[in-house]
Amino acid sequence: MESVDDSPITRNGNSLILAYDHGTEHGPVDFEPMPKSADPTHVFEVGRHSAVTAIALQKGNAEYYRNWETEHAVDDAAPLLVKLNGNSNLAKRDDYYSPKQCSVEYAVEHLDADAIGYTMYAGSLHEDEMWKEFREVQEAARQYSVPIVMWSYPRGKGIQENDAYSGQDDPDVVAYGGRLGLELGADVVKCKYPGSQEGWRQLEDAVGDLKTVMSGGSKRSDEEFLADVSATVEAGGNGLAVGRNIFQRENPEGLLDKLETVLFEE
Amino acid sequence: MESVDDSPITRNGNSLILAYDHGTEHGPVDFEPMPKSADPTHVFEVGRHSAVTAIALQKGNAEYYRNWETEHAVDDAAPLLVKLNGNSNLAKRDDYYSPKQCSVEYAVEHLDADAIGYTMYAGSLHEDEMWKEFREVQEAARQYSVPIVMWSYPRGKGIQENDAYSGQDDPDVVAYGGRLGLELGADVVKCKYPGSQEGWRQLEDAVGDLKTVMSGGSKRSDEEFLADVSATVEAGGNGLAVGRNIFQRENPEGLLDKLETVLFEE
Amino acid sequence: MESVDDSPITRNGNSLILAYDHGTEHGPVDFEPMPKSADPTHVFEVGRHSAVTAIALQKGNAEYYRNWETEHAVDDAAPLLVKLNGNSNLAKRDDYYSPKQCSVEYAVEHLDADAIGYTMYAGSLHEDEMWKEFREVQEAARQYSVPIVMWSYPRGKGIQENDAYSGQDDPDVVAYGGRLGLELGADVVKCKYPGSQEGWRQLEDAVGDLKTVMSGGSKRSDEEFLADVSATVEAGGNGLAVGRNIFQRENPEGLLDKLETVLFEE
Amino acid sequence: MESVDDSPITRNGNSLILAYDHGTEHGPVDFEPMPKSADPTHVFEVGRHSAVTAIALQKGNAEYYRNWETEHAVDDAAPLLVKLNGNSNLAKRDDYYSPKQCSVEYAVEHLDADAIGYTMYAGSLHEDEMWKEFREVQEAARQYSVPIVMWSYPRGKGIQENDAYSGQDDPDVVAYGGRLGLELGADVVKCKYPGSQEGWRQLEDAVGDLKTVMSGGSKRSDEEFLADVSATVEAGGNGLAVGRNIFQRENPEGLLDKLETVLFEE
Amino acid sequence: MESVDDSPITRNGNSLILAYDHGTEHGPVDFEPMPKSADPTHVFEVGRHSAVTAIALQKGNAEYYRNWETEHAVDDAAPLLVKLNGNSNLAKRDDYYSPKQCSVEYAVEHLDADAIGYTMYAGSLHEDEMWKEFREVQEAARQYSVPIVMWSYPRGKGIQENDAYSGQDDPDVVAYGGRLGLELGADVVKCKYPGSQEGWRQLEDAVGDLKTVMSGGSKRSDEEFLADVSATVEAGGNGLAVGRNIFQRENPEGLLDKLETVLFEE
Repeated sequence: MESVDDSPITRNGNSLILAYDHGTEHGPVDFEPMPKSADPTHVFEVGRHSAVTAIALQKGNAEYYRNWETEHAVDDAAPLLVKLNGNSNLAKRDDYYSPKQCSVEYAVEHLDADAIGYTMYAGSLHEDEMWKEFREVQEAARQYSVPIVMWSYPRGKGIQENDAYSGQDDPDVVAYGGRLGLELGADVVKCKYPGSQEGWRQLEDAVGDLKTVMSGGSKRSDEEFLADVSATVEAGGNGLAVGRNIFQRENPEGLLDKLETVLFEE
Repeated sequence: MESVDDSPITRNGNSLILAYDHGTEHGPVDFEPMPKSADPTHVFEVGRHSAVTAIALQKGNAEYYRNWETEHAVDDAAPLLVKLNGNSNLAKRDDYYSPKQCSVEYAVEHLDADAIGYTMYAGSLHEDEMWKEFREVQEAARQYSVPIVMWSYPRGKGIQENDAYSGQDDPDVVAYGGRLGLELGADVVKCKYPGSQEGWRQLEDAVGDLKTVMSGGSKRSDEEFLADVSATVEAGGNGLAVGRNIFQRENPEGLLDKLETVLFEE
Repeated sequence: MESVDDSPITRNGNSLILAYDHGTEHGPVDFEPMPKSADPTHVFEVGRHSAVTAIALQKGNAEYYRNWETEHAVDDAAPLLVKLNGNSNLAKRDDYYSPKQCSVEYAVEHLDADAIGYTMYAGSLHEDEMWKEFREVQEAARQYSVPIVMWSYPRGKGIQENDAYSGQDDPDVVAYGGRLGLELGADVVKCKYPGSQEGWRQLEDAVGDLKTVMSGGSKRSDEEFLADVSATVEAGGNGLAVGRNIFQRENPEGLLDKLETVLFEE
Repeated sequence: MESVDDSPITRNGNSLILAYDHGTEHGPVDFEPMPKSADPTHVFEVGRHSAVTAIALQKGNAEYYRNWETEHAVDDAAPLLVKLNGNSNLAKRDDYYSPKQCSVEYAVEHLDADAIGYTMYAGSLHEDEMWKEFREVQEAARQYSVPIVMWSYPRGKGIQENDAYSGQDDPDVVAYGGRLGLELGADVVKCKYPGSQEGWRQLEDAVGDLKTVMSGGSKRSDEEFLADVSATVEAGGNGLAVGRNIFQRENPEGLLDKLETVLFEE
Repeated sequence: MESVDDSPITRNGNSLILAYDHGTEHGPVDFEPMPKSADPTHVFEVGRHSAVTAIALQKGNAEYYRNWETEHAVDDAAPLLVKLNGNSNLAKRDDYYSPKQCSVEYAVEHLDADAIGYTMYAGSLHEDEMWKEFREVQEAARQYSVPIVMWSYPRGKGIQENDAYSGQDDPDVVAYGGRLGLELGADVVKCKYPGSQEGWRQLEDAVGDLKTVMSGGSKRSDEEFLADVSATVEAGGNGLAVGRNIFQRENPEGLLDKLETVLFEE
């Protein structure tokens, strides 16, 4: 098993994943603050910034990305992380679930993915089903030697109805979610920021040498956002996955420059 | 991945799909206004019009179509789009679902399909199951290099019980449905007309370069129908899929001539 | 795809299928009016009549039939149609369903089946599941070039709770069931007699060139039974599948002679 | 297809199956009346009696049996019938079901099984699921040419809630169960004794040439037990499967001697 | 089939399995009494003690363990037992269930497992599903000739709602659980201590020659813990699987020394 440090999605051991799966997860509404972000090629261009170590796309945009690269002979495009599951928010569900819409085989053999991603909703009524699906994904990814990034988001009835937890951001919940990334065989675990640097340290204590990246979350000011990222990295985190905080900005280069400093050069 | 523009189901980038799956979806009642339309060979003949870039059939009629072509040495028959799922309206269901009744392998290897079609009911309780089935269909179609047309019809409890949406024709719903076509890896997405040209523009803004075709819907006058088609094309749409508005007419050639002009020659 | 007219189960384009799956569907009670009919070999003997173009058996009796043929060096035995699904009436079910108890592969490779049969309960809560199972069956049968007979019996909650339908014999229901046979890729569809010749004509109008056979139903007088068969054939039907009306008679040869005249010689 | 008469599990056309699956079905409590019966080797020794034509074991004991044979160079050990499904009585179930815990492939290729057994609970809410599982088992067993013994025990809500039946021992229920063994492709069907010789005759009338064996049931006196067995054989039955009536006795040889006479020598 | 006595996970016929799956089952909270136990390498070091005949890890830590061995050129590391299923306690479930998160193939071929483990919750509503999953696991493990350890923990509604049982520690429950290990084909069964040596003897009486190991349970004093272990071994048990009683101690060598004496040298 190769180390994720040797993969194209890390740089000096850290990662900045530009996430662009919002059209699946939330629909076109997420592009309204910056209408041109609805156009995948706009976001692909943003991904050329040297701070970006991976762009995370659903299958259809990943197909488009590989065509775009070919058409434009891009040599500074970000490595491709194909997100294998996802869901729309159109459906009613009894609890959180994210169906697989791309196989590892297709991602690697046809889309030449540099890494794969999978969302895990521990705490949901569908947790056990997702474990089984992750098992197949994880073992197939090992077969192809591509790193596995787990979006580890404990949520659902098991969290909501447990008085011991204050919610999805509870440091105990975040740390358990991270530990599951380790136990189930991920290479990188993406977690929500648990509200404090102390919370992130608790996460780091629970995951051994597993790499951790912070979830970017909804848009906030440069200062607030960078403060969270710095606190994360200082506490042992390995970077972040970010979408709206980048593509909802008119000119994201400035923020990307600062992130590059924090993540790779300090 | 070949571009759908190079496939036989488009002409100058646009498509007119003659849909004839009504015997499955609605039963013989849809043929009552024009009884001879119950006879598949009648509709196959209509499909010889040069405006038609594909005829969409369920498996049994597709088998019949290939035999009919052979028997009649037809050289102006429309390319075949095999619809892979469908349902009757006889069953009660807890929410919308459309089971697969033809595999990609059978459609391509045995029926020599030029394209395949799949109905997706985002918003239904069965959305996630359909995503999984679409995943397999999509990847198999890529294997065979046949274009994938998604009938993207968000509907069901997730739409009905969401106050933010006015119904299936809500432009936000139509646009989210179209975006899912892009994210999940379709080549063409078939959407309901969202009631206005502005609504169609909203759809176009959400789907990047994905091709869109308008759903023909129930029969109306030539004028009304052509107005919707023109508005769609003007707004960036790539044609339509039409059934009842063609085969429920005594003499559909006139309308097909006009559609040909709108779609391919203006 | 070979035409069913070239298969051994038709004669001059028509079929008389001797059905003997009652031990599965209803249990030994169906043999009580004629106890020797419980013995499969008795019915196998009846099947030697030249009017019979196929004998329809469940797997176990089909195995027995092939042994019986071998042991008796039978050369006038009827072609074998293996019924692939079926159910007992012992179980309570939430709605109609008929599980598969024989694969196409086993039927053809091991039992040397001349045709296969499958029951479809459109209108049931399990309709969609049966469509999926039929898909596999249909495609496997095409692989082996054996004709596919669909027992198309719309029933269940979707019919019972729909005020537009009077029941399973409603001509609209029968015609929709027949149309599904066409759309899903059967070669022959077996339908209930919809109570009148006009009803059968409605069915014929809905199914293109698909072959139709009448379901024999419960035992009635020779005259009544022959009248229904004649009406069916006159309206374009291609024969019948009959069980109790044959094997519950002490001496079925007379009726078989008359059926032979009606079906093949008029 | 070879006849079961040519298999090692019959002798002069009849069978005595020593069943030892009680540790699975009822747990150690069944061994309390005769504690040494908890030790599989004790029962294996009993199986050396020449009356025993097969010993029926679950997978784990079957593995042990083959090792025991090897270690002891046994040449008078009973042929091995591997029971492929079974259940504990620890779980609550909505209705009867018996999951598969051994594949035919493993039973034959690794355990060198001489026959396989499968329990079918027609009448249960899970009947249809069990039919599907039996289908696979039956076809795999044919592939390996090992005889198939069906434990055919109609029970569950479909029987309990049907006023036409008095219970599991109702001769109509037993006969329908036996008929299903024939229709689904078993070689031997194991049925409950329906309370009278007349009931067993009704069963025999329903199953053609299929072999039938009586279920031993709970322990009773030698006389009562032998009377039931004799009545069964006289009515056309082909033997019995017996567990507790043998292994719960201090010295079962006497009873086995008598059974040998009744089954094979009269 | 090789004997488990010839496998690396036993020593003089007994085993001491160091279990470290608590991060999966209970989350980081189990490491709080001894924070450094959250770090897998700390526990790997503990496993170098000569008393340890196997270390039981979930997939992710097993991957890490193999890398750790490579990096450190460890030659006194414990043999690896990969636990194939497990669950978090974050989810709400209708009854106990433990999904598979590692395949036998991956465990053996990629992780070079010396043994595999599987948790079985007989008595749960999901018991039957787990039997089916265990069937596949068991047969695959035989294919690879690795010993199978069953964590046999009857629990759930079937136990709770059965007045005949006092709970999971009821000797009747423990013995039935152990018997299932035998019947389903395990090589070693891990059981809860049933509260008394007499209870363990009852277990031993029920399992033939199957090996049994005691579950370590929550942390208690050295004396109490060793007393249970000694009682178990004296009653015929073959060792123990222990986690918290080892890794929650500051200095576990003393206890491991004593266990080594009890298990392997007396």
